[in-house]
Amino acid sequence: MKIHGYFRSSAAYRVRIALNLKNIACDTALVNLQAGDQSSPAYRAINPQGRVPALETEDHILVQSLAIIEYLDETFLGPSLVPSEPLARARVRGISHIIAGDIHPLNNLAVLNYLKDELAIDEDKRTRWYQYWVGQGFDGVEPLLANSSDTGTFCHGNSPGLADICLVPQVFNAQRFDCDLSPYPTIGRIYDSCMALDAFDKAQPSNQPEAAQFA
Amino acid sequence: MKIHGYFRSSAAYRVRIALNLKNIACDTALVNLQAGDQSSPAYRAINPQGRVPALETEDHILVQSLAIIEYLDETFLGPSLVPSEPLARARVRGISHIIAGDIHPLNNLAVLNYLKDELAIDEDKRTRWYQYWVGQGFDGVEPLLANSSDTGTFCHGNSPGLADICLVPQVFNAQRFDCDLSPYPTIGRIYDSCMALDAFDKAQPSNQPEAAQFA
Repeated sequence: MKIHGYFRSSAAYRVRIALNLKNIACDTALVNLQAGDQSSPAYRAINPQGRVPALETEDHILVQSLAIIEYLDETFLGPSLVPSEPLARARVRGISHIIAGDIHPLNNLAVLNYLKDELAIDEDKRTRWYQYWVGQGFDGVEPLLANSSDTGTFCHGNSPGLADICLVPQVFNAQRFDCDLSPYPTIGRIYDSCMALDAFDKAQPSNQPEAAQFA
Repeated sequence: MKIHGYFRSSAAYRVRIALNLKNIACDTALVNLQAGDQSSPAYRAINPQGRVPALETEDHILVQSLAIIEYLDETFLGPSLVPSEPLARARVRGISHIIAGDIHPLNNLAVLNYLKDELAIDEDKRTRWYQYWVGQGFDGVEPLLANSSDTGTFCHGNSPGLADICLVPQVFNAQRFDCDLSPYPTIGRIYDSCMALDAFDKAQPSNQPEAAQFA
């Protein structure tokens, strides 16, 4: 099994955390997003969308980080990343999708490049764009976490799962873009709980083998 | 059970299709996105993210369309919207997330308004933005559908499910924005198969009770 990814990709970062939490061995293949590898014919043959991550199994290729993570959760032993009870599953997926579906798609490299290259939006305004969508999404996530007795040490209860897997790379990137996270103390607390775990720490961009090349 | 939605919201449209396919009775509450109802304190108390849809059950509120649809699929009888086999589930979710997570978030009303109001992007360039992200996403979806023997009358096999539920509102909106869909014959064929079904047709924006007010 091989994961095609890139150290700075939030979506690949999510899958790395999931692999670590479930203790699944997986080869990695670097898709250098800065160099445009994702648009090469070779990579498009793997993932026609030209995005990372893609999970290559013996005879299938899976795309989209959340679909990959649910697949890993359904087929490998180890701690469950998605709870078994339907309401709990919906809560975890709801929080996950706010982050992975409403914040991150607006702030990924392809979008920031389009703003710069096609719309001539300057860096200040691109940074405000980034911060705005983080704020819009976290304004939704914080009360869902802070006002629910389902929230524990982690987003749902006291073991880390899919929502935490989405939260951590988003907070990590929000910090890179100087987002004000002070209105989100519950998000901050859960982020700290996650980063104290090896599974999250080892998945950090700076801890990937290719990070050194880009230093 | 009550669904908070808006006739033109793609995400609410998805949930309407799912309710119809599973033949689930559900009240509806109008959140007028044009009037800004989604930002009212009353609606923020229901969904702190200020987005539609939200599903109100007796004692819970669920957010995010795909989380809601998987919940409905897991708790109600009727045809399965997500297959039971893990690889098939991952394929269906992968296609669904390309649309719901990579195309739609870039093209929703909040984003188009930000481009107009905050970045002074004119209508022509906003239309090109819309079309660009539809193209990027559909360039990924079309080969996943066209090159797989898992594709049938619908995105996965011969009964409609989650991927079709995501595909139809996106094609519907792409047509509104004059996107060139000729490079996507498989998407077009599946859209036609879906729209021939009552469950999809009745969920159309123009067939919602509030549509008349906005004519």
